[in-house]
Amino acid sequence: MWPPAQLPELAPQLKALGMESDPADLSDLTAHPMNAVISLGGCTASFVSPDGLVVTNHHCAFGALQYNSSEEKNLMQDGFVASERGDELFAGPGSRVLVTVEVSDVTGKILGDLAADLSGRERYQAIEDKQKKLVAKCEKDEGHRCRVSSFYGGLQYQLIKQLEIRDVRLVYAPPNGVGQFGGDVDNWMWPRHTGDFSFYRAYVDPQGKPADPDEKNVPYHPAHHLTVSQKGIGDGDFVMVAGYPGRTNRYRMAAEVENVINWSYPMRKQVFDEWLAIIEENTADRPDAAIKYASLVAGLNNATKNYQGMLEGFAKSDVVERKTGMESDLQAWIDDNPERQDRFRTALADVRALTAEGRSRQDRTLYYEFMAQRSSLLGAAQTLYRLSVEQEKPDAQREPGYQERDLLRIKERLTRLDRTFEAQVDRAAWTHFIHNYAAIPVDLHMEDFDHWFGIEGNTLDEEALNKRLDSMYADTEMVDQEKRLAWMEKKQAEIEASDDPFLRLAVRLFPGDMALEEEQKSLRGRLEEARPRFMEAVIASLGEQGEAVYPDANSTLRVTYGSVQGSVPQDGMVYTPFTTLPGVVAKNTGQEPFATPPALLGAMKNQGSSRFAMASLGTVPVNFLSTLDTTGGNSGSPTLNGRGELVGLLFDGTYESIISDWDFLPKKTRSIHVDIRYVLWVMDELGGAGHLLEEMGVGPAAELRAGTAGSGR
Amino acid sequence: MWPPAQLPELAPQLKALGMESDPADLSDLTAHPMNAVISLGGCTASFVSPDGLVVTNHHCAFGALQYNSSEEKNLMQDGFVASERGDELFAGPGSRVLVTVEVSDVTGKILGDLAADLSGRERYQAIEDKQKKLVAKCEKDEGHRCRVSSFYGGLQYQLIKQLEIRDVRLVYAPPNGVGQFGGDVDNWMWPRHTGDFSFYRAYVDPQGKPADPDEKNVPYHPAHHLTVSQKGIGDGDFVMVAGYPGRTNRYRMAAEVENVINWSYPMRKQVFDEWLAIIEENTADRPDAAIKYASLVAGLNNATKNYQGMLEGFAKSDVVERKTGMESDLQAWIDDNPERQDRFRTALADVRALTAEGRSRQDRTLYYEFMAQRSSLLGAAQTLYRLSVEQEKPDAQREPGYQERDLLRIKERLTRLDRTFEAQVDRAAWTHFIHNYAAIPVDLHMEDFDHWFGIEGNTLDEEALNKRLDSMYADTEMVDQEKRLAWMEKKQAEIEASDDPFLRLAVRLFPGDMALEEEQKSLRGRLEEARPRFMEAVIASLGEQGEAVYPDANSTLRVTYGSVQGSVPQDGMVYTPFTTLPGVVAKNTGQEPFATPPALLGAMKNQGSSRFAMASLGTVPVNFLSTLDTTGGNSGSPTLNGRGELVGLLFDGTYESIISDWDFLPKKTRSIHVDIRYVLWVMDELGGAGHLLEEMGVGPAAELRAGTAGSGR
Repeated sequence: MWPPAQLPELAPQLKALGMESDPADLSDLTAHPMNAVISLGGCTASFVSPDGLVVTNHHCAFGALQYNSSEEKNLMQDGFVASERGDELFAGPGSRVLVTVEVSDVTGKILGDLAADLSGRERYQAIEDKQKKLVAKCEKDEGHRCRVSSFYGGLQYQLIKQLEIRDVRLVYAPPNGVGQFGGDVDNWMWPRHTGDFSFYRAYVDPQGKPADPDEKNVPYHPAHHLTVSQKGIGDGDFVMVAGYPGRTNRYRMAAEVENVINWSYPMRKQVFDEWLAIIEENTADRPDAAIKYASLVAGLNNATKNYQGMLEGFAKSDVVERKTGMESDLQAWIDDNPERQDRFRTALADVRALTAEGRSRQDRTLYYEFMAQRSSLLGAAQTLYRLSVEQEKPDAQREPGYQERDLLRIKERLTRLDRTFEAQVDRAAWTHFIHNYAAIPVDLHMEDFDHWFGIEGNTLDEEALNKRLDSMYADTEMVDQEKRLAWMEKKQAEIEASDDPFLRLAVRLFPGDMALEEEQKSLRGRLEEARPRFMEAVIASLGEQGEAVYPDANSTLRVTYGSVQGSVPQDGMVYTPFTTLPGVVAKNTGQEPFATPPALLGAMKNQGSSRFAMASLGTVPVNFLSTLDTTGGNSGSPTLNGRGELVGLLFDGTYESIISDWDFLPKKTRSIHVDIRYVLWVMDELGGAGHLLEEMGVGPAAELRAGTAGSGR
Repeated sequence: MWPPAQLPELAPQLKALGMESDPADLSDLTAHPMNAVISLGGCTASFVSPDGLVVTNHHCAFGALQYNSSEEKNLMQDGFVASERGDELFAGPGSRVLVTVEVSDVTGKILGDLAADLSGRERYQAIEDKQKKLVAKCEKDEGHRCRVSSFYGGLQYQLIKQLEIRDVRLVYAPPNGVGQFGGDVDNWMWPRHTGDFSFYRAYVDPQGKPADPDEKNVPYHPAHHLTVSQKGIGDGDFVMVAGYPGRTNRYRMAAEVENVINWSYPMRKQVFDEWLAIIEENTADRPDAAIKYASLVAGLNNATKNYQGMLEGFAKSDVVERKTGMESDLQAWIDDNPERQDRFRTALADVRALTAEGRSRQDRTLYYEFMAQRSSLLGAAQTLYRLSVEQEKPDAQREPGYQERDLLRIKERLTRLDRTFEAQVDRAAWTHFIHNYAAIPVDLHMEDFDHWFGIEGNTLDEEALNKRLDSMYADTEMVDQEKRLAWMEKKQAEIEASDDPFLRLAVRLFPGDMALEEEQKSLRGRLEEARPRFMEAVIASLGEQGEAVYPDANSTLRVTYGSVQGSVPQDGMVYTPFTTLPGVVAKNTGQEPFATPPALLGAMKNQGSSRFAMASLGTVPVNFLSTLDTTGGNSGSPTLNGRGELVGLLFDGTYESIISDWDFLPKKTRSIHVDIRYVLWVMDELGGAGHLLEEMGVGPAAELRAGTAGSGR
């Protein structure tokens, strides 16, 4: 997962694998193709027309489908086609298209003049202040969003500047039987047959500037967009993916990996499973509530399968032993030389000690911070009160997330609550998790929380709890959108005087929560000092062996390259690189999650002659595998061939790859892509999308055949 | 699954696939290799030494391991090696080695002079009487067991004569972590890594005749035994399997298949799942009881997975539509020609009508006959009473199964009860199933049964039931082996006068059960008249198209041939034909069912140089796939190369093959074999079996290397 700036160095490897265009182009964020690769915040997408048409994964647009669905008209189920631009639907509050326009190294500006003797808490604050200053200056350029990202655990800092388009509309989504074909059963699995694609369009004001959603807005005209390759890609061909991978942990220490295996993942899986069961129980036969929680349920299901896969992967892996060995070797390398000793002697031990300190508080983090405050209404109340507290300060001194630049996002989040909250489900989950919290060691409890709910020691008074919850849900006005948003304008004292039970609880919990936050910041400040020393040692020792080191993923723009390739997931079994239409037919049962739309099923049986068929397969390819290194956040990323043309969309990895966030194993790790030929075939066969195909330069059948006859490949 | 006599006709195909020896040899049951292929009654095996050493599957010897296991010494867990012949262990009552010595067509003798106007019941009896007569005559040759088997649904009958060796001893079994590696998780699955092999030895009296188990007995010297091929087999090579496949239903009609999909398999799966749950609940933390039910549990687990696989296979299959189409075509072919009309006009309709009649009684068969009489003690009591009734008649008139020739088997079965019965489990299962029975429509109930347990209509008086069961289990002497066997000598009147509660219930149920049996025999007699007409039409119409028709499997000796070959189980995935030692290491978790013995695990990591390694794989092959057509009963069958040498043991089929009992799909169906090289490698590495390897002609390492250096392949 290479930062674009590092790619020119890798030109020989890229050329050898089959890249035809100039690798140096990839480092220019204002040029093709990188300028066409955009972030949706959590997912990746790309421009595929001069009129701002955006393609991403179906599962990335799922929130927009949920936002526009009702019991009567379920877009998640039926899909959506805007027949003309006027029919395109607002994707929901908080929807964004972010185009990275500049990346600059600001390490010197952040770390250059930090005093050596700062406490952890002071160091944390000093870094945060410098970051806020850089961001504020960068965002003077209206319509842009900036942030400072840390690389190599804080060894480097970069200022990322992105054009922020705030009017995003839903243009096209296939029915659930295509976009989520296989559902949770096939999620993370190969063979796969999912048409995981949808289309958005970016809108700006008539002057071409980002603007709030408005009828007067017009399609954005990106400087560059991707060309759709109607010929697709073949086995062994070069491919690359540009996108915004969220997070990897490839340089974590053995002790950190062990903690994740033995504590974090098993615990979180358990909590998520419980949460899912509660949502299922409380939304059964309540379709309106089910729609509100559909997106959360999809996310939790994905996460639990991910945790399960990680744990199975770890069980088969020797990663802890290997890391332990590498750490011994690294320490020996450090101890071998006085200069290195000077710089790195305690680096490993320091990170280890801080890891242990973090471990000692993780039960509280999970049970109190994550579970016991699980109500969405409480979350909203806490946001509102914190905002009022922060707004007493000058903007530059406010906590990040509560500055002027964050008000719109807060408002959007508070607005979105209407579509993601339902009292019965909210209360059921909260009640359950309060019980879990009550059972943990009392020294991890928070006095104010216990008192509010009548918890004494590990004893929970059921009657008191129910009475309290009855009155909270009955008396709150937090469920009313207008009233909820109105609190954004109120002063701290006004909120403190409120008798809304959720606000009262938020006020009550605030001092305790702040004390925890202070502890957390102190720990982080110390880690920001120690981990860079460890990473510097890693880079230096690997550098001596001629190995380049890429930074862990951190939601910044990256490029990964490789080839279309199957794998050997197990002794006795091979994954072949393409799946095809007959495979969809074979999986189709007519029942969710294997319910192919009948219109497509018929067409699948006569697919050999389709203009989107792949000659070597004799049919239309559906999904394909590649050796690319991707992770969550890459979803929706354009998959490009050696000329930078769009040949597919990255949407998943195989089950054997899940562990790759911690331990990349090139033999087993495979990314899963939806083939662009399947995207086009589905749009063509389902009908109603001719204008979109045309917009992407894909003509009607006859034209295409004429057009491609002479082009060759 | 060709009867040996049909094989010479297939010589061109066999030769083309790579058979080196003369296909005609396969039809001679007294010659090599067929004479070395033996039945264990339910499984297949083969002689692999001149001293009667027998190799079969581990799961076929599982009953013998269970019989010889106790809480203190668990052979199922630890495996077993007899260091010398004196240490070989009696495999348990009922263990048999059966060598087919003659097969003769007796169709004329059975059907030749049957009157045309017999009722179903009369026809049934006439056929049974003729069969008994032929069998009695055949068995005058002492030490032999004979039976008449029906082929093509009663169109042909053959008299099968088998040498019956009754002293069978356990010689070698690997530990559970080899023999059942993968357990129920991997059962029916590929990739597979199971060392499913064990060894028996056949013993006879000093004169070489079959005899009851006795210390004075000596190893049997078979006329022929198989040669072990230490070179094994490669991808694409010719293989064949000779064995005793139990039952296929390839020529059943659409209506029969539909009934199996919609009723039989779902119902039986449900019943078996319930039964398994009860056994599990009642044997938890009771290792002695668990050992007694281990074999039943393995069988039930295997069956439920089989049913599940069948149902999934049927759901994806168009077999009912295809059969409906074929039946229409066949009817049209019949109606097309007056002569055919004469012979076959009503054949299809008749089988359909009889199928419908069978369906109308199947609920009673399941709920009353199978479930409500589920107690092993009741089963023993019913056997004893029926025996006393039959013994009032001359031997030739007795019901098959209760003749003089059956007395030893009955005694063995009644003896085995001690090792397979435990009162708490027996009672729990019975109680559960009596509840199921009570809930079915009252017109399917049996008056005597209801009365005994205080069932009125669908109402079951729990107190009465429990009281009755309390007294039955408290008062019976059926649990005492000596007393149980003593009843075999008693007259009908003596049993009728007994106050043993299980015998009293058996006597009480007898008249009702006999009435059901009479109905059943009448139906069978009519089917034995109708189905041969249908099959004759099938054979004639296919014969016109030049297609040979093999009879459905019926536990008689068959040969199937094909090649070592992987498959494409799903779009996007390939099964490669061999699994290897590293695959075992990868699956090993150290926990059941993936707990490889540590002694082997170490050796697996240095396997490239093993004398049993396969050059093209660089390691020892463990299991392999073939295109062979096999089913239950084939388990343990020798897998032979083109020269008739032993290269593996058939032990399973892939999940995609399960449906093949009803609908053989050559593309998907694959049999799974344990590679003989893995068998030898395990025995060599675990140690203690050098004398057995030597007995099979496999010398120690050094010798072997010298011996094979010049032989080439």
